[in-house]
Amino acid sequence: MICVMTPEELAEIDQWHETLLRVRYAETDKMGVVYHANYLVWFEIGRTEFCRARGFSYRDMEEDENAFLVVAESYCRYKAPAYYDDVLVVRTHITELRRRSMRFGYEIIRESDGVVIAEGETCHVVTDANSHVRTFPPGFAELLLSEPINEPVGEPVPEDEAPL
Amino acid sequence: MICVMTPEELAEIDQWHETLLRVRYAETDKMGVVYHANYLVWFEIGRTEFCRARGFSYRDMEEDENAFLVVAESYCRYKAPAYYDDVLVVRTHITELRRRSMRFGYEIIRESDGVVIAEGETCHVVTDANSHVRTFPPGFAELLLSEPINEPVGEPVPEDEAPL
Amino acid sequence: MICVMTPEELAEIDQWHETLLRVRYAETDKMGVVYHANYLVWFEIGRTEFCRARGFSYRDMEEDENAFLVVAESYCRYKAPAYYDDVLVVRTHITELRRRSMRFGYEIIRESDGVVIAEGETCHVVTDANSHVRTFPPGFAELLLSEPINEPVGEPVPEDEAPL
Amino acid sequence: MICVMTPEELAEIDQWHETLLRVRYAETDKMGVVYHANYLVWFEIGRTEFCRARGFSYRDMEEDENAFLVVAESYCRYKAPAYYDDVLVVRTHITELRRRSMRFGYEIIRESDGVVIAEGETCHVVTDANSHVRTFPPGFAELLLSEPINEPVGEPVPEDEAPL
Repeated sequence: MICVMTPEELAEIDQWHETLLRVRYAETDKMGVVYHANYLVWFEIGRTEFCRARGFSYRDMEEDENAFLVVAESYCRYKAPAYYDDVLVVRTHITELRRRSMRFGYEIIRESDGVVIAEGETCHVVTDANSHVRTFPPGFAELLLSEPINEPVGEPVPEDEAPL
Repeated sequence: MICVMTPEELAEIDQWHETLLRVRYAETDKMGVVYHANYLVWFEIGRTEFCRARGFSYRDMEEDENAFLVVAESYCRYKAPAYYDDVLVVRTHITELRRRSMRFGYEIIRESDGVVIAEGETCHVVTDANSHVRTFPPGFAELLLSEPINEPVGEPVPEDEAPL
Repeated sequence: MICVMTPEELAEIDQWHETLLRVRYAETDKMGVVYHANYLVWFEIGRTEFCRARGFSYRDMEEDENAFLVVAESYCRYKAPAYYDDVLVVRTHITELRRRSMRFGYEIIRESDGVVIAEGETCHVVTDANSHVRTFPPGFAELLLSEPINEPVGEPVPEDEAPL
Repeated sequence: MICVMTPEELAEIDQWHETLLRVRYAETDKMGVVYHANYLVWFEIGRTEFCRARGFSYRDMEEDENAFLVVAESYCRYKAPAYYDDVLVVRTHITELRRRSMRFGYEIIRESDGVVIAEGETCHVVTDANSHVRTFPPGFAELLLSEPINEPVGEPVPEDEAPL
């Protein structure tokens, strides 16, 4: 069997991870909104934290297991502008999991008003440090499908609560 | 008529613009290759130079015409890694041109060996400074479809020729 | 009196703000460490959160008060490399406060081992939206020198606690 | 003798290299000008091209000679804003050259009106891939002090000449 998990099977156990981040000044452009390439950086933060919440350190996968999730495709649909200092929720889930590849799906939502800023997807191939395609290290695919170890804590931006 | 130019009509007069750029150290990541979000920045350079070659300054369109090409979608397929100091050819063409939107297609190719690094597409909506959708300023759609004023000069990275 | 607060007076009430951040993959380079220009981005996060902790939203200062803290100088001394996924403490304090300018000082420390990654300073001039030098809006200099409203919460990276 | 070249000796043979670049949309921020951290990226382009003009590929120095010019300090004074699509001249020279370290000085000037945008300096230590300080590879310090092989060609942005 090639596919560890079909999209249909995944949909049944569908788990989203939520991570908060705050828009940096450096991420804006002269239009006064976030420059669009930064969304791909945020997607990366989303999948890293998705993994971490399941006891899976992407850094360790690279350094200890010689396994890299190389980006093979990216797609983003920009639905509403995000602004400097906005607190955004990056929602991440797995949309496909195969033996040598996987897909993550994303939503970015402004926390203050719930507006959907963007939706996207990335496709990844598992490789070793020499860029040869390989399978996931033992146990990692299972971790990806497991329940989060602790509830999404979701308060990485506590200063947000400070009164003005 | 909504569509200024159908994809089929465009295909007939298909014009690609080529721009050279050199990979910056800042654009690499710990995998030793270019970080994938930078390709979207290069696509933007590609479409800016596509316009400039047709006598169309994107800066002027924003500042003098109150017309912005807001990115509505981006897609990129990463086919081979690019490395620090590589000279890359960004090839850009128009894949759809409507009254209030357009699509650019891109190819990124390493100059030294002709390897295709990436392919992509971006979809744009024309808006004013207040993010209201509008049509292209008069004459701009025609410029986009015109022949380049001067041949793609294609030597933006002359130091490349220097002997080592 | 030109100077709202001399360095000596500031030293007496010296207050540092601490903000946590986690190194992004996008911030690394092919040397396997953080690319040096990113430290200036982190300094900016440090001063933004320094202000926020004192009830001072830098975004509001720009948007409501027409006052911008333009960067006039930056200095950074890089003391030890930072790595992907490191949690870093950005420590920020005011080193000079004048009527139309100010300086922030910074330290960046790796949370896990206390290693000092970098030290730096930025000098800022207060301007309006047309780049004309002006004084701080009423009350803002006082806020900058005030006690933080709530204790530095310091848990913006809670996933860090998750067991591997 | 520790010092390969004192600042005074360098001043006598002072050689500046000039590289052109065009401001990218991605490099601007919501203030409508270039975000300040990008100047450090441009300084890096300046020193890379300074080396290349003297037959010295920084990429090769890293890959073939196991020698890295790690940034130890950076300083930048921001004198005037740079705008999207500006063509800038990055002027680079050596301000100190020692056996295990060196300093580059920089000026950034807008080509169209000669306005000085910024001045800066970076200090570098020569290390191997394991971050141990080492001396320059044989011949490299001499190359740094040599005459440029070909005149600074200075046309990396040819589209600039295109009529609007």
